[in-house]
Amino acid sequence: MSIHFKECFEHKVMRDTVHGYIHVNYQLIWDLINAPEFQRLRRIHQLGGTSMVYHTAEHSRFSHSLGVYEVVRQMIEKVSGLGDVLSEYERVSLLCAGLLHDIGHGPYSHAFEAVTDVNHETFTDRIILEDTHINRILTAVDAQLPQVVSDIIAHRHERALLTQIISSQLDADRMDYLLRDSYFTGVSYGEFDLQRILRTMIVVDDRIVMKESGIHAVEDYIMARYQMYWQVYLHPTSRSFEGILLSIFNRMKDLTLEDSDAMDCVSFFKPFVREGSISLQSHYELDESTCISGFMTLTKSDDAILRDLASRLLNRVLFQYVDFESDEQLQKIENAVNTAGYDTNYYVVKDFTTQTLYQTPYEQNVDSEIYVSIDGKLVELSQASSIVRGFVMGEAKEDRKVFYPKEIRYE
Amino acid sequence: MSIHFKECFEHKVMRDTVHGYIHVNYQLIWDLINAPEFQRLRRIHQLGGTSMVYHTAEHSRFSHSLGVYEVVRQMIEKVSGLGDVLSEYERVSLLCAGLLHDIGHGPYSHAFEAVTDVNHETFTDRIILEDTHINRILTAVDAQLPQVVSDIIAHRHERALLTQIISSQLDADRMDYLLRDSYFTGVSYGEFDLQRILRTMIVVDDRIVMKESGIHAVEDYIMARYQMYWQVYLHPTSRSFEGILLSIFNRMKDLTLEDSDAMDCVSFFKPFVREGSISLQSHYELDESTCISGFMTLTKSDDAILRDLASRLLNRVLFQYVDFESDEQLQKIENAVNTAGYDTNYYVVKDFTTQTLYQTPYEQNVDSEIYVSIDGKLVELSQASSIVRGFVMGEAKEDRKVFYPKEIRYE
Amino acid sequence: MSIHFKECFEHKVMRDTVHGYIHVNYQLIWDLINAPEFQRLRRIHQLGGTSMVYHTAEHSRFSHSLGVYEVVRQMIEKVSGLGDVLSEYERVSLLCAGLLHDIGHGPYSHAFEAVTDVNHETFTDRIILEDTHINRILTAVDAQLPQVVSDIIAHRHERALLTQIISSQLDADRMDYLLRDSYFTGVSYGEFDLQRILRTMIVVDDRIVMKESGIHAVEDYIMARYQMYWQVYLHPTSRSFEGILLSIFNRMKDLTLEDSDAMDCVSFFKPFVREGSISLQSHYELDESTCISGFMTLTKSDDAILRDLASRLLNRVLFQYVDFESDEQLQKIENAVNTAGYDTNYYVVKDFTTQTLYQTPYEQNVDSEIYVSIDGKLVELSQASSIVRGFVMGEAKEDRKVFYPKEIRYE
Amino acid sequence: MSIHFKECFEHKVMRDTVHGYIHVNYQLIWDLINAPEFQRLRRIHQLGGTSMVYHTAEHSRFSHSLGVYEVVRQMIEKVSGLGDVLSEYERVSLLCAGLLHDIGHGPYSHAFEAVTDVNHETFTDRIILEDTHINRILTAVDAQLPQVVSDIIAHRHERALLTQIISSQLDADRMDYLLRDSYFTGVSYGEFDLQRILRTMIVVDDRIVMKESGIHAVEDYIMARYQMYWQVYLHPTSRSFEGILLSIFNRMKDLTLEDSDAMDCVSFFKPFVREGSISLQSHYELDESTCISGFMTLTKSDDAILRDLASRLLNRVLFQYVDFESDEQLQKIENAVNTAGYDTNYYVVKDFTTQTLYQTPYEQNVDSEIYVSIDGKLVELSQASSIVRGFVMGEAKEDRKVFYPKEIRYE
Repeated sequence: MSIHFKECFEHKVMRDTVHGYIHVNYQLIWDLINAPEFQRLRRIHQLGGTSMVYHTAEHSRFSHSLGVYEVVRQMIEKVSGLGDVLSEYERVSLLCAGLLHDIGHGPYSHAFEAVTDVNHETFTDRIILEDTHINRILTAVDAQLPQVVSDIIAHRHERALLTQIISSQLDADRMDYLLRDSYFTGVSYGEFDLQRILRTMIVVDDRIVMKESGIHAVEDYIMARYQMYWQVYLHPTSRSFEGILLSIFNRMKDLTLEDSDAMDCVSFFKPFVREGSISLQSHYELDESTCISGFMTLTKSDDAILRDLASRLLNRVLFQYVDFESDEQLQKIENAVNTAGYDTNYYVVKDFTTQTLYQTPYEQNVDSEIYVSIDGKLVELSQASSIVRGFVMGEAKEDRKVFYPKEIRYE
Repeated sequence: MSIHFKECFEHKVMRDTVHGYIHVNYQLIWDLINAPEFQRLRRIHQLGGTSMVYHTAEHSRFSHSLGVYEVVRQMIEKVSGLGDVLSEYERVSLLCAGLLHDIGHGPYSHAFEAVTDVNHETFTDRIILEDTHINRILTAVDAQLPQVVSDIIAHRHERALLTQIISSQLDADRMDYLLRDSYFTGVSYGEFDLQRILRTMIVVDDRIVMKESGIHAVEDYIMARYQMYWQVYLHPTSRSFEGILLSIFNRMKDLTLEDSDAMDCVSFFKPFVREGSISLQSHYELDESTCISGFMTLTKSDDAILRDLASRLLNRVLFQYVDFESDEQLQKIENAVNTAGYDTNYYVVKDFTTQTLYQTPYEQNVDSEIYVSIDGKLVELSQASSIVRGFVMGEAKEDRKVFYPKEIRYE
Repeated sequence: MSIHFKECFEHKVMRDTVHGYIHVNYQLIWDLINAPEFQRLRRIHQLGGTSMVYHTAEHSRFSHSLGVYEVVRQMIEKVSGLGDVLSEYERVSLLCAGLLHDIGHGPYSHAFEAVTDVNHETFTDRIILEDTHINRILTAVDAQLPQVVSDIIAHRHERALLTQIISSQLDADRMDYLLRDSYFTGVSYGEFDLQRILRTMIVVDDRIVMKESGIHAVEDYIMARYQMYWQVYLHPTSRSFEGILLSIFNRMKDLTLEDSDAMDCVSFFKPFVREGSISLQSHYELDESTCISGFMTLTKSDDAILRDLASRLLNRVLFQYVDFESDEQLQKIENAVNTAGYDTNYYVVKDFTTQTLYQTPYEQNVDSEIYVSIDGKLVELSQASSIVRGFVMGEAKEDRKVFYPKEIRYE
Repeated sequence: MSIHFKECFEHKVMRDTVHGYIHVNYQLIWDLINAPEFQRLRRIHQLGGTSMVYHTAEHSRFSHSLGVYEVVRQMIEKVSGLGDVLSEYERVSLLCAGLLHDIGHGPYSHAFEAVTDVNHETFTDRIILEDTHINRILTAVDAQLPQVVSDIIAHRHERALLTQIISSQLDADRMDYLLRDSYFTGVSYGEFDLQRILRTMIVVDDRIVMKESGIHAVEDYIMARYQMYWQVYLHPTSRSFEGILLSIFNRMKDLTLEDSDAMDCVSFFKPFVREGSISLQSHYELDESTCISGFMTLTKSDDAILRDLASRLLNRVLFQYVDFESDEQLQKIENAVNTAGYDTNYYVVKDFTTQTLYQTPYEQNVDSEIYVSIDGKLVELSQASSIVRGFVMGEAKEDRKVFYPKEIRYE
């Protein structure tokens, strides 16, 4: 294709705490950043409940999305051989995919999606493909571009190399969020040497693999990822916050099904908790500010459960937690909660999670594995690194917790 | 007084990106942090429009308030002689004052207070002295404590040493915000050596002064302050955002005076833009989330001006700016804005600011000056440091800007 | 004992890049720092050949020794319970032991000790116990102090808790050198969260163990240690430099045994490479400066081998290396080296090293293991951490290299 | 000229603590780095006596020289317009000039040059132009190259743009040493935003000037420079060390003039302290290691003064200092020193220094001024920045100190 991608009149730089600067050369990228759907990401925190534990972790998906774009840009510039095997069309598509990969996220996606049919991946697709500012900006450059960009993000693109950069075991998304979440929590565990990784990546058989000299840098990255999960992402206080959110959404869903007029004062929540399609306009309008404002309204709700839970959320009166031991224990907790006058449907939250040492929590995809080039042969990382092999042999780590109000005592 | 200040059952630490950790030893401090009025500060950004320029500057007044508390705590521990000249009652009062000094702030205080009678200092006083969680927590320890704490914050306390620590040319407030804003913008200009300053402070004549060996560290701090003003706090893009806020509040005020029903959908704004007292409950409920949610509602307002301005704010369609040169130039801009169909009351914003090199923008208070102890005599900083004297002799730097919509061309 | 340990007239602080400041409160410590034997450590690099790879790694054992002292000081202050179970006498002895643990080191100890009978531990003992400035300073405070300090360093002290702090799997020595070597090489792999480790250590059964909440911080430390070994300490270029040193010392030893007059111009080396005792004065005078100066003299030696090797060392004309594969391969290398006119005794250097993932390279001592306190029971780290267990299950990593001149080609 | 500059077979990177990496693309640069005269810089500290105050400041001129090279390389790559106005020949010459600008330095140049006729600039010229490895490497690429490189360094090159990059108020040399000395002392005052400065430099009228948007970054750099002078470079303890060096060299000079045999044991010093030319071989051999080794020999000298001074230097028994007040005071000090049995020629050292706020200590050269491009006109920095103007108006800061042995008391 011989599309002309216009450069910015003046190359733009945006100061960034993680990468130093975000560099923008294409007018298209600048226009996407200024689209309302992208600006909306300023109003959604990157780490929902984590700021309840790490109070400085108040950064947004806006910053993270710029960061992923920048990592993609640096990969194209610095990974040996990558710039050459990609056409300009593919390079620009990749930059767009990096920038837009999280565009469909709503507030508190984790809790939201557990309760509802809402799925941020579906909305990412819709925002890129349907009638939006984003879509118009992409289409103005090339009619196929929205489809190509969304295909890269959704793993539908035929060239695996492109999807690998956006979403795999060692992708631009994770590399940015580990560094960024580490910077904003103040937890040093998430740091690794990004520049060293970029310098030791090469393209072999149309796939990005590591040179042998980069193994240690990748081991460090794997360790960073593991540590951030247990130190930050799965921190029980953060999960307690998410648990209360879950109960609020569950309660709103139940009330909506009952057609209760308790939901009238926060009617903008309704499309999300009932069956049926959700308009992109509703999605656009629901950000964390409107959510929080809705919870503020709910502190005066007629429904005692919503009133109490919303107040807990806003004022950080979180649930306590205990390791799950047995069904009898759980039964005792539920009895105690019940006796105290709480509805166990909303006041007892189970959260069971398992993580193997070397596996990502979300996907298990052959294409996404990390390979190392050793003496001309490609070797899977856990075969090349005895430390990663040690991880693989280590058993999965389970974490099963039960959350319930602080004042409850059982047995 | 022989009040007993209970220690926490277990000393608490909160990880902080600027100070490493926030250390909490007193149960009273822990309780204040968990009060709803303090948790509300999570929902108010420290730097309103600055994140429009520095996208990572998304930190809250909550983090900053914890940081000021921590700097006060470190001063008491580390400043030579300070711990000894203060009673435990005074030390605890100071810690409370550091923590609560910003408790009265609302969303976008700068723009808000320019339009309305709302004054964050008044609210700080009221939240500490009237019927609130904060007041009850303080009173439970000692009936006089609310008065003492608010007196320290409001410069009414008879012992100048106490107010000096919270609010002066070299106070815990500024020391935290320069470091914090530097960290979160990624701008290195705001960094200075806090530990060196603490180590070279001493108490002389019941006032904190610098040892001669600390002059260079203070020069560096003065320079950091100066740079942050021009690089960050007075950045024109940030002021453009504030200008639009100003126009929105002005428009809401005008409509409220006219008793327009355009304000009905966002009635929680009304108490703030009309005359008459504002309840603490109204104040509590108005945070940045409810503001933003209100602006989201206004994008569908019947009033075209509010509709347009709110949409600009949410989607970062900011005003352009030009240096003010003459009244004729201003007249030309207003004519052009008028011709384009815009109401110049809301679409032309003048913002004139002046800063002398060594003066703070807000106050000029003899008590707040920085003194250096040289050979047993106290010397005002600009007499002791030729570099600060250079600052004083440098003329004031003026910055007069006019903001108006991007599409307008004049002459 | 009721010894009085005099405090410094004014507490001293020394700016340090790793710990911020080194704090000195006792006059005894200040005097030891100013002893000639301690000042001599300024003239011995911490990482011999490493600056051949990482050019900024030019720091000395002087800095490191101050750093270990500071970590001991912080442990006493910050580790929960530790300050209480130690008498002041033990605390001061520990501080001295931290400061002096490396006092017996000579230049390039690793290579030196491989060739000669010189042993830095022996010299550490002698410098503390025999007639030196160090000994006189310690004795002046208490006649038993030299013995106690040297016992702690040499693992002879009856209270294992004291030796554990100076020398074990998780001791002040390693914690300083990992952080310091990381800072000066610019390699981020060696970083870990020292403050977090100190905060999660407790004293149980007169031994320092980790709280369960500190496991992740220790895992990170273990990982840092592992990475630093392979990235820095065992880097082949650094080992090539050590190999040439080894050959120089071997050649000097052989010539000394032959009573060759080639050694007359560098006679100060002789005591070290022949049998017989070495005086403390000879030891004091041999630092890296005198060594280097000796090598400079050797570039004009009558002995062609010394002349060539010394010149290689000074001008960084290092040996190349290859992985050892078989005795046949080694034979081929030796033949080629021989054919080129080089003496294989000095121009072929074998360096075989093995490292298991979770073991230190130097010692295997039951007392030095890391234990974690879980629900009141002490559990060895690899039982408590699945990641460390993974390390233990991973097989040992071997690295066998052969070094020889760059111009040699074999087969 | 159509010289071909060969690229390295593989681009080299050297990890650097200040710049992340030093990038080497040309084989010529790689060869120069490996020349013995350049490797010798590893054996000369960047900051002579400063490590007596800041114990971590143990970095060498080798690291600094690589750093200057890297800053030049980044300037060529990043300064808008610079790459285009330079031919490849000029670019490579500049890189060589950056790398080699300090090649003529000897140990403790400051003290050395004060006592002798030795001048490091002369030696830089000689090492580049006479028969050395450096010269042969340059000549092999192009016969004119040594002359061009030395002309750039010595301000003899006709194109002022080239010399400006290596040596002016805002040159690669200073930008590296401020950052590097800051990193290795641990003093944050020397930090400034190098990347911002590079991004706001432009070429106007064949000269590098600042864009108006870069003024604040340059102000910060000026401030960093000022602070580093007073905090680090002119620190009295460091000057005390230099004072003792000065006295040693003076004593050696006097003894050499007297033809004393006290100098026989350290004869390699003789060429430097007597009249007459010094060979490049003598210069090569005199590095800090041979110096220190010589001082070690002198601790056993027959000359009591050398014996004492050398021992003071090695064991950090420095002189105390006092502000110079009057000739009477000086006379009293000299009398007291005399009475104590010391020769005042060597035991009283006066060190008077003056620094204006905005001037470099060494040169005052019109060509080297910093200009700012404002609305198309070039304005000298102190006209463009009120803060720098403040510096200029501030009076010069004088620092006059007298150094003498610690045990002396006068009046």
